[in-house]
Amino acid sequence: MSIPGRTDADLSERLLAGDKRALARGISLVEDDDPEGWALVQEVYPRTGRAEVTGFTGPPGVGKSTLMAALVRHARGRERQVAVLSIDPSSPFTKGALLGDRIRLSEHFLDAGVFIRSMASRGSLGGLSEASLQAALLMDASGKDEVLLETVGVGQADVDIIDHADTVVLVLQPGSGDSIQALKAGIMEIPDVIVVNKSDHPLADTMVREIRGILSLAPEGSWRIPIVRTEAAADKGIDELVEKMGEHREHIEAEGTLAERRRRNLENEVMTLAAVRLRRRLEESTRDDAGVRELLEEVVARRVDPATAAARLLERET
Amino acid sequence: MSIPGRTDADLSERLLAGDKRALARGISLVEDDDPEGWALVQEVYPRTGRAEVTGFTGPPGVGKSTLMAALVRHARGRERQVAVLSIDPSSPFTKGALLGDRIRLSEHFLDAGVFIRSMASRGSLGGLSEASLQAALLMDASGKDEVLLETVGVGQADVDIIDHADTVVLVLQPGSGDSIQALKAGIMEIPDVIVVNKSDHPLADTMVREIRGILSLAPEGSWRIPIVRTEAAADKGIDELVEKMGEHREHIEAEGTLAERRRRNLENEVMTLAAVRLRRRLEESTRDDAGVRELLEEVVARRVDPATAAARLLERET
Repeated sequence: MSIPGRTDADLSERLLAGDKRALARGISLVEDDDPEGWALVQEVYPRTGRAEVTGFTGPPGVGKSTLMAALVRHARGRERQVAVLSIDPSSPFTKGALLGDRIRLSEHFLDAGVFIRSMASRGSLGGLSEASLQAALLMDASGKDEVLLETVGVGQADVDIIDHADTVVLVLQPGSGDSIQALKAGIMEIPDVIVVNKSDHPLADTMVREIRGILSLAPEGSWRIPIVRTEAAADKGIDELVEKMGEHREHIEAEGTLAERRRRNLENEVMTLAAVRLRRRLEESTRDDAGVRELLEEVVARRVDPATAAARLLERET
Repeated sequence: MSIPGRTDADLSERLLAGDKRALARGISLVEDDDPEGWALVQEVYPRTGRAEVTGFTGPPGVGKSTLMAALVRHARGRERQVAVLSIDPSSPFTKGALLGDRIRLSEHFLDAGVFIRSMASRGSLGGLSEASLQAALLMDASGKDEVLLETVGVGQADVDIIDHADTVVLVLQPGSGDSIQALKAGIMEIPDVIVVNKSDHPLADTMVREIRGILSLAPEGSWRIPIVRTEAAADKGIDELVEKMGEHREHIEAEGTLAERRRRNLENEVMTLAAVRLRRRLEESTRDDAGVRELLEEVVARRVDPATAAARLLERET
């Protein structure tokens, strides 16, 4: 039996030693919002910060999972330990659409040097960003050389986990017209590396040209954003992608911005976690509360406006 | 001089009477987070709920503003009063990209029966959704028959204002491959009406077919989502779009779901406003606080994990 709020020492030791099952167990605990999971992260946190964390974002269907599989293969060829965390925000209806992609990573399931996990939103408010951050920290603590975070991002969606990455890679494909427009309009943040996957497509050249055009308009920084063509399903372009990711890391290390990024990311994470908890507390304390129901009825009846109702809710709380 | 927390009676009277300048002034007040603005919304709120509120979402560049202009023209032809609220989440760098679109609405600037306003994010946290909701309520109160809310949405971005609409229209164009994939993956919510704009494009048929394919997989509801082809720049397809929007409204009125939608929307708005304020309070109380800086330093030094730091922050607060 474990002491409440404390994890059994064995689990954290095994996790720190790189035991795959301990890592899986730890992630399940944080995913279930189990206090033991939080205690585990607390214990192993001093051992984090050593993994190279790369975030991959981009619209669904561009082949991110296939790209992850190719990158894992590449890393294993260099005997590096890798963990992949895939965040799946798709709705319960169509979940199959994204989960099917996971199969592409299955060749690595039996490899002790590879850990793969996917997390779905399950409709829990804010819970996903919280759990995924904790999971990424556990992966880092378990001694992985690389942590790859995969998330769907189109526009400025809640890509919180991406904010945990040292290097952000945007994956597009020929036909990613909406993302190009979003980049152009400044709605999508400029990443560190851009990948055009499925580059055997006849429109790949046009896409690369369009991206180049947009990047030429962006304010010039010290890092020139590379555009890498890959054909992940055929293992093409992966060497170059790994090289560019490495160059970006060297660049931010040399410049001193890696430490700065991590500081900013960690500070954001603290604030985000605090805000998520505040909102959850608010929702818990108001759910099934007769006074709140009455207040909401007043809003629906157009007697109390939403802002005033929100203010009253907060007064009740404090 | 106005009494703090109260608006001058004249402003609310003029706004309720449909005075364009009073409406503009009111929106500026809420945009500036002026207490007079909140008081104004509070006063006029009982007079809201009469406008037909339609939300238009979709990736940038598909021609939403041109479509708005065509819809305004159409509404004016039937002597209906219209207000348009455009939400512009683009970054300060590239602001021009979206603001340029506003020019397409300029033909209506001098028409007393039309009110057009655009709001940019200005980087204020949560402030945009708060201000835009208040602005939409003021437009409604000012006696407009229709309120058109235009926002950029790709994936599950923070399209809060769309949640205020009775009818949601998703605008795509041939080449909107990423949005199609997002719909397919269940990452983008299924709207009430889908528009394929720029339908003179050779790939428009393919796009319509793809959308139809996706919709056929969605769980069947009582409303069959129409796909309307428009060529907004040439005023084509607008009659049909207006007809479909009208049919949707009739459908939800007949079914009784309009009231239900509005109830759900208003309840969400109250919770969102409360959560935004909670977060703002938290940020204000921690900014420039030496204790918080120290705590964050502990996180950066990997001595205190982010979740524990968040919990400590919240303890300080309460």
